[in-house]
Amino acid sequence: MPVVFQNIERADPKLLGDLGAAGVATVHEAMGRRGLMASTMRPIQRDFAIAGSAVTISAAPGDNWMIHVAIEQLKEGDIMVLSPTAPCDMGYFGDLLATSAMARGCRALIIDAGVRDTRELREMGFGVWSTAVSAQGTVKETLGSVNVPIVCAGAQVNAGDVIVADDDGVCVVPRGDAADVMVKAKARLEAEELRRARLASGELGLDIYDMRPRLADKGLKYV
Amino acid sequence: MPVVFQNIERADPKLLGDLGAAGVATVHEAMGRRGLMASTMRPIQRDFAIAGSAVTISAAPGDNWMIHVAIEQLKEGDIMVLSPTAPCDMGYFGDLLATSAMARGCRALIIDAGVRDTRELREMGFGVWSTAVSAQGTVKETLGSVNVPIVCAGAQVNAGDVIVADDDGVCVVPRGDAADVMVKAKARLEAEELRRARLASGELGLDIYDMRPRLADKGLKYV
Amino acid sequence: MPVVFQNIERADPKLLGDLGAAGVATVHEAMGRRGLMASTMRPIQRDFAIAGSAVTISAAPGDNWMIHVAIEQLKEGDIMVLSPTAPCDMGYFGDLLATSAMARGCRALIIDAGVRDTRELREMGFGVWSTAVSAQGTVKETLGSVNVPIVCAGAQVNAGDVIVADDDGVCVVPRGDAADVMVKAKARLEAEELRRARLASGELGLDIYDMRPRLADKGLKYV
Amino acid sequence: MPVVFQNIERADPKLLGDLGAAGVATVHEAMGRRGLMASTMRPIQRDFAIAGSAVTISAAPGDNWMIHVAIEQLKEGDIMVLSPTAPCDMGYFGDLLATSAMARGCRALIIDAGVRDTRELREMGFGVWSTAVSAQGTVKETLGSVNVPIVCAGAQVNAGDVIVADDDGVCVVPRGDAADVMVKAKARLEAEELRRARLASGELGLDIYDMRPRLADKGLKYV
Amino acid sequence: MPVVFQNIERADPKLLGDLGAAGVATVHEAMGRRGLMASTMRPIQRDFAIAGSAVTISAAPGDNWMIHVAIEQLKEGDIMVLSPTAPCDMGYFGDLLATSAMARGCRALIIDAGVRDTRELREMGFGVWSTAVSAQGTVKETLGSVNVPIVCAGAQVNAGDVIVADDDGVCVVPRGDAADVMVKAKARLEAEELRRARLASGELGLDIYDMRPRLADKGLKYV
Amino acid sequence: MPVVFQNIERADPKLLGDLGAAGVATVHEAMGRRGLMASTMRPIQRDFAIAGSAVTISAAPGDNWMIHVAIEQLKEGDIMVLSPTAPCDMGYFGDLLATSAMARGCRALIIDAGVRDTRELREMGFGVWSTAVSAQGTVKETLGSVNVPIVCAGAQVNAGDVIVADDDGVCVVPRGDAADVMVKAKARLEAEELRRARLASGELGLDIYDMRPRLADKGLKYV
Repeated sequence: MPVVFQNIERADPKLLGDLGAAGVATVHEAMGRRGLMASTMRPIQRDFAIAGSAVTISAAPGDNWMIHVAIEQLKEGDIMVLSPTAPCDMGYFGDLLATSAMARGCRALIIDAGVRDTRELREMGFGVWSTAVSAQGTVKETLGSVNVPIVCAGAQVNAGDVIVADDDGVCVVPRGDAADVMVKAKARLEAEELRRARLASGELGLDIYDMRPRLADKGLKYV
Repeated sequence: MPVVFQNIERADPKLLGDLGAAGVATVHEAMGRRGLMASTMRPIQRDFAIAGSAVTISAAPGDNWMIHVAIEQLKEGDIMVLSPTAPCDMGYFGDLLATSAMARGCRALIIDAGVRDTRELREMGFGVWSTAVSAQGTVKETLGSVNVPIVCAGAQVNAGDVIVADDDGVCVVPRGDAADVMVKAKARLEAEELRRARLASGELGLDIYDMRPRLADKGLKYV
Repeated sequence: MPVVFQNIERADPKLLGDLGAAGVATVHEAMGRRGLMASTMRPIQRDFAIAGSAVTISAAPGDNWMIHVAIEQLKEGDIMVLSPTAPCDMGYFGDLLATSAMARGCRALIIDAGVRDTRELREMGFGVWSTAVSAQGTVKETLGSVNVPIVCAGAQVNAGDVIVADDDGVCVVPRGDAADVMVKAKARLEAEELRRARLASGELGLDIYDMRPRLADKGLKYV
Repeated sequence: MPVVFQNIERADPKLLGDLGAAGVATVHEAMGRRGLMASTMRPIQRDFAIAGSAVTISAAPGDNWMIHVAIEQLKEGDIMVLSPTAPCDMGYFGDLLATSAMARGCRALIIDAGVRDTRELREMGFGVWSTAVSAQGTVKETLGSVNVPIVCAGAQVNAGDVIVADDDGVCVVPRGDAADVMVKAKARLEAEELRRARLASGELGLDIYDMRPRLADKGLKYV
Repeated sequence: MPVVFQNIERADPKLLGDLGAAGVATVHEAMGRRGLMASTMRPIQRDFAIAGSAVTISAAPGDNWMIHVAIEQLKEGDIMVLSPTAPCDMGYFGDLLATSAMARGCRALIIDAGVRDTRELREMGFGVWSTAVSAQGTVKETLGSVNVPIVCAGAQVNAGDVIVADDDGVCVVPRGDAADVMVKAKARLEAEELRRARLASGELGLDIYDMRPRLADKGLKYV
Repeated sequence: MPVVFQNIERADPKLLGDLGAAGVATVHEAMGRRGLMASTMRPIQRDFAIAGSAVTISAAPGDNWMIHVAIEQLKEGDIMVLSPTAPCDMGYFGDLLATSAMARGCRALIIDAGVRDTRELREMGFGVWSTAVSAQGTVKETLGSVNVPIVCAGAQVNAGDVIVADDDGVCVVPRGDAADVMVKAKARLEAEELRRARLASGELGLDIYDMRPRLADKGLKYV
């Protein structure tokens, strides 16, 4: 069953750039509030936003062998997404693997497990979202798979899906939906810009969104 | 039952400033170690301290409608305090709502749930203490209440209570106790200043606080 | 049973400096992947690495009396390591105790509980790794022990053991093993340097470590 | 500040019996979905339901002294409700204290902390809802208070409030609301009986509650 | 986007019976260790094993409206599988809904959230695996979907997949794989029967599985 | 480094029987409140108490190979105690391994990880205390050690130490202290018997333990 799918389709780089700039909260809304990873998935750095194509890794708990295999599959703009087959907080990934991944054009890792060398990773500018930080080393004994569908931190990820990650977390956009999602995200951003100006001037959401009648209907009482 | 109390009493701005400068640890001690929120309530920023008057929000899980209602009630120096009626880590609050709140003079949010747009919130200088960060959006379907008594992260909060928040967490001072608490906090700060100097010079707490006889009485053995 | 062991042996300062510079991940590997504290033990600061000799503290939950006792035992280069006898997230330690500890040459605290005054501690340059941040104060009623063997965040610690701590967590090196561990750590660092250069040039781990035959043996299929 | 309020008002025993029989889920609904303790509050026994008047205990973490004080205040039909002033999983309570409490007519304990002697407690028929089971003993060093307002597992409890507890958890009914809540609970139970019969016969909630038009309005699509 | 798929394919009842009898641990092994839900998914009853066809429910947090919709889709032998779109521990399901589900031939619920009326559910013989028990009620305001693919407690579930649940947890078998998995499960059960007899007689796994040479090869030392 | 110590000393069977009958809470008190495992270590059965000699197992996460090795070392009355070298909730142990262990006279397992086949284990009368239940299978790839010192659920365990386990949890008694601890435990049990009678008759702990003067001294106020 362990298998490496080598030829995956990726989203257009321009689209990746736009989705990364839009950010997780906007993209998540634009795609109908689907695809968000659990809030336990946290960045090890601040003020870092990115989008890329998912190279997925299904790995045994405490075994990072498949990361070496996955790195060979990386192309410019890819993001590795690793999910262990059972909960594990060990440090699968550190600065050496990041060096190798960066040499192939990969700029980030999403991992439902631990990483180490976090200070070095930040200094290298390699983005990491993980559910743990741990210096605990892993073994290379059990095969897993690369570019198979995985569930990572509660979200379904297929190889080539667009990963959007920033300080708020990580969102997965199915590759086929990415262009459409970006259209909606752009509309949202524009609408937000208008609303931001009105809100900043002191106008209330209660009025902008015309909420008062519905609040009264539902029975809200002011005292 | 959903209700908005519109006229709440607030503490004196000078007192708020003093309590904010004293900080959570000192204020918490000064009020007899009551009123602290659970340690799961964490700031999304660093090196930020504030005190303000609580505008409380009781909201349904995953429903941020009442924040819009609460914003209309905000006055200069207020802090919103939101507790969902069941545990929830969704992102109730982001930069648009913060823009609106800041337009009314509010500078911070305390929320036993999630927030999003964390990078933008930090850039805006809007302080947030939350139990989660999540891009997950909420709905506007179910009424809640504003300025009713709530329990937030284990602490009882009434509208108009003084909220003190810094890197150590969040403390609630009943409005009527605030002046008295500040007197005691000031005394503590002065006493600490004296002790700090002695401790910095190498004098031991064992001697400053005369602990040795009681340690011996209780039976501590030195080997 | 409460006891303070006053004369403990410490590792050589040069060795401490070298182990601190090597870092937790490398040291942990060099000692055969033993001695790591749980990943719940997190720094309150960033980009801070240190090694020192453990002064251990076994304390009752919510009682920081023994820290005062321990401070008298501190020597230049020591690190305090505190474990409560039951899980506790209260704030055992703040800036006053840190002032006192620094006056005796101690630069860091490892605590399987909470600390407070975190902003001041960071400003003082006193390193802290803890499992919680809390302003909740403690009492001084129950004796504990100093420099007895303890289990802290899942790791066995004896007085005088070398504590290595950085952004990745905390590792404990038995004092007697420290020199040998440093030899191995140094070898690892040198080997890593070589590998880093090859990986940075785009060579793959699959080839550097000759993994392809074993992957094929185990049955990995490329599609 | 440590204080024992000795004369508290209690609800009518008949009312307690009725509320206990109605059960937590029904009572919680009947009072507008307020007053429920967190779902971390779990029974140590099965198939046990009870209601009683709260004797509240605010205790230091790891210190059960105040339970001895509280027992003197117990009357027939009371339930002790203990909240530590900081999170604590130690075993505050065991079979000896239960023997003493039962001698005064108390039949249950609600505790946001640990208990021990759980097998014996079950055999004695003394009901316990706790957030932990632990044999870890406590001290008797620090005063607390009895019959003051407390927050227990997220719920506000005043002395004399009605505690309803069963396999689903624990709910707090303000004493003054208890009679009114029971009227509503009874109405709910009767309405449920009717609905249960219809549902058991195969009729659908979609039809009984006339949900189809609103589902269609909101846009639910059947494929 | 909210949609109900009405015509789903189901596995053969005989196959369901066989998979239920084989149990979660065996089935999970037989399908190559895939499809297991997280260990936070726990039964509310003991000594209860079942297998059925999944009717999946994607619901808003704290909103059980879609359960009513799903019940209409139930057929004899189905199991409902509900995942909220954000973490939620509220009580989505109780004895009335169970009455309705049983009237349509459904015997169990798998829910990554809370349930209530647990005692009654046990008495009714309706099996429940949940991540929480809570009396907290839900609303009926937001649409979700029925029989769409969901991720439940970390496992991907499609409508009509076979759910196997017992005291060890819950496993998902893709409908198309079920017959093949059962063949392998049966072979495992037979092999285990033989091994159980040898092990019961005192023979060692070390010898039965011929582990000694490999242990020696890897360097295990006996002292 | 992987090693199996074959000749360990064990406590006297009579002493084991007595300690098991005394129970965890009493033994833990008798040994000065040391040696208790964390409250996350829970039994999979009810009303089961046991004491035995520890055969310790240090295992890689998700790898149960060493259990096979350990079983060969078991003698009548032994209890296996397994700690993984990193947190892991996988199912290391099931009914086949229990069959083998029972054939050698072992009656229980303490494991800081998961087990499976829980229903069968209960039916076999094999006692298990674990931190998880999971059907997730493990591999046999990485060596560990048997009968080396380990830290299990926060407690230090040496081979041959006495393990006492019941519904309240698990306590470790160093072999050399066991006889002395039992003397103290017996004294405690006798004293408790006397106190139980007095408490059952309605006498108060406040009077039996003469607490009133000290409560008054500390300033407890009765209102």
